[in-house]
Amino acid sequence: MAVEAPIRIGILGCAEIARKLSRAISLSPNAALSAVASRSIDKARAFAVANGFPPHAKIYGSYESLLDDPDIDAVYVPLPTSLHLHWAVLAAKKSKHLLLEKPVGLNVSEFDTILEAVDSSGVQLMDGTMWMHHPRTLAMKDFLSDADRFGQLKTVHACFSFAADPDFLKNDIRVKPDLDGLGALGDAGWYCIRSILWAANFEPPKTVIALPGAALNESGVILACGASLHWEDGKSATFHCSFLSNLTMDITAIGTKGTLHVNDFVIPYQEKEAYFSTGTETGFNELVTGWVPQPSKHVVITDLPQEARMVREFANLVGAIKNGSKPEKKWPIISRKTQLILDAVKASIDKGFTPVEVVY
Amino acid sequence: MAVEAPIRIGILGCAEIARKLSRAISLSPNAALSAVASRSIDKARAFAVANGFPPHAKIYGSYESLLDDPDIDAVYVPLPTSLHLHWAVLAAKKSKHLLLEKPVGLNVSEFDTILEAVDSSGVQLMDGTMWMHHPRTLAMKDFLSDADRFGQLKTVHACFSFAADPDFLKNDIRVKPDLDGLGALGDAGWYCIRSILWAANFEPPKTVIALPGAALNESGVILACGASLHWEDGKSATFHCSFLSNLTMDITAIGTKGTLHVNDFVIPYQEKEAYFSTGTETGFNELVTGWVPQPSKHVVITDLPQEARMVREFANLVGAIKNGSKPEKKWPIISRKTQLILDAVKASIDKGFTPVEVVY
Repeated sequence: MAVEAPIRIGILGCAEIARKLSRAISLSPNAALSAVASRSIDKARAFAVANGFPPHAKIYGSYESLLDDPDIDAVYVPLPTSLHLHWAVLAAKKSKHLLLEKPVGLNVSEFDTILEAVDSSGVQLMDGTMWMHHPRTLAMKDFLSDADRFGQLKTVHACFSFAADPDFLKNDIRVKPDLDGLGALGDAGWYCIRSILWAANFEPPKTVIALPGAALNESGVILACGASLHWEDGKSATFHCSFLSNLTMDITAIGTKGTLHVNDFVIPYQEKEAYFSTGTETGFNELVTGWVPQPSKHVVITDLPQEARMVREFANLVGAIKNGSKPEKKWPIISRKTQLILDAVKASIDKGFTPVEVVY
Repeated sequence: MAVEAPIRIGILGCAEIARKLSRAISLSPNAALSAVASRSIDKARAFAVANGFPPHAKIYGSYESLLDDPDIDAVYVPLPTSLHLHWAVLAAKKSKHLLLEKPVGLNVSEFDTILEAVDSSGVQLMDGTMWMHHPRTLAMKDFLSDADRFGQLKTVHACFSFAADPDFLKNDIRVKPDLDGLGALGDAGWYCIRSILWAANFEPPKTVIALPGAALNESGVILACGASLHWEDGKSATFHCSFLSNLTMDITAIGTKGTLHVNDFVIPYQEKEAYFSTGTETGFNELVTGWVPQPSKHVVITDLPQEARMVREFANLVGAIKNGSKPEKKWPIISRKTQLILDAVKASIDKGFTPVEVVY
């Protein structure tokens, strides 16, 4: 087998999260950190120096010029959500494959416009939901898919909260209506919704209802909210996402025969190994004074951090397309479903916490 | 200090759970297993033999005759909920202190009738919620009460489910409308509601909304349901209770500064030691690739099983009353609040999952 050239990735913007992705691109064996663009070329240059870009990496003072570079295969877009539509569509038109931070768009309509551009250019679209790429996620999915160990899914609860500091709550793009207007729902809530869909084999719920009492800032941006999701077969899910509570990242999925717990699903406690616990047909001893059997803890070792595995997967798909394959539809499909439920939760909040039917 | 005579406890009925309580009474240093009554004296006798009653324990063929025994100080009542009103009121009138299985009544109105009888006789009322008496519960409460380690409570999620077998779903009293008409809500849901109130310092929520899609059997008894609870200050809680899902017993309480997780809150995995985990100001490392600090696990050793600690506490209160003290109001107060929220969830289900205001 011939040694393939690494996929050359450019980064649009110098967001905090782009530092982590720069490292991930460096760590990924099939990707190269090839360019960075900022509206300020000095900022781009400083970013490249601070984040281990190789000496030949290109530095651009505008996003357009990076997109016009024929030597860039793909772009990572960590821009504020309100800018995704413009830049993702333009990138697709310039035939750049897209690794796009979540939420992909401000709503499904934006998502679909991006998707059209991607489809018509034949480029790959993948969102930046890193935890999907951790081998732990695969191991947990094996458990959830096992009729003997887990049975049929009955309910899921997911939570992602973190206690934003006063500066974040005043200045972060995620609390600005013109930048990331979906606030905690678009940020932390995206992960909760994704985890619920993931547990439900990406079958969208029939109905979504936001829980009353969503916390909004003075501009109407969501700082904390929750919702329940309901499927026709009786499955249900709840989630809570917040910028106002201590860091928590739970998925609890309960089936007819088994239970899954994970408490650091978005970002594992440690980079090299990650845990989850499962119980199967857990029950009580004869006098109901203890559990038999008890749940057990599992550890999953990973060769690369989850974000580098994401880049590796993305670059593999881009490489395959360069060799004649079609883009992998799985990733945009699960992105779109996530965005669809996000829309439904937002609509339910806007309609006074009333049920919203999900039209897929 | 004089050695006090142990509190003489009689058991009304030979329910499965009464076996566990018989052992708990035996283990409690200040209580004596003094009598058992069943509608069948043979059944009562067999129960006494099988559950280590001392030779001098009284065996009765009717509940009335046990209640008429002047040598019995207190009764433990594990009868079906629909019988609580009658027997608890009669027991109180006969001046027997009451350790009453949950749910105390079928609704708050029944609860209040029992409470009136208890108050007018000056006897102690305590419900059989065992986990309240585990030293782990106190340790967890210390954490939740700590402004530095936990901050202000923002949200709680509780879950108690178990996978009932076909025989249970057909024949258990908890699926019979004339016996335990509240089904999974009165049984597993009681614990969830109690845990939420416990985490909220027993401040009742303002509004309760059942989640759509409660599962009912053909007689209309709840087999699975959920609800969200909402306080005026923005605190919220959700719970899920079920007879249809694998055994799971979670409390997750999240504050502004801390997070509590426990996964076996109703009945600990093991009798002698129990676990919970806490995180305080958990956050990320510099590149957001891991947690600093990570949550930590705590172990609590107990001298006696939680149900024996419950009996010991109950017998202590009864002993104090015999020595001139007043009944301890704390226990009926938290029981009543639990019953009140249970009523609200039931009302919300009956009203098509619409919000119910809690009037305390």
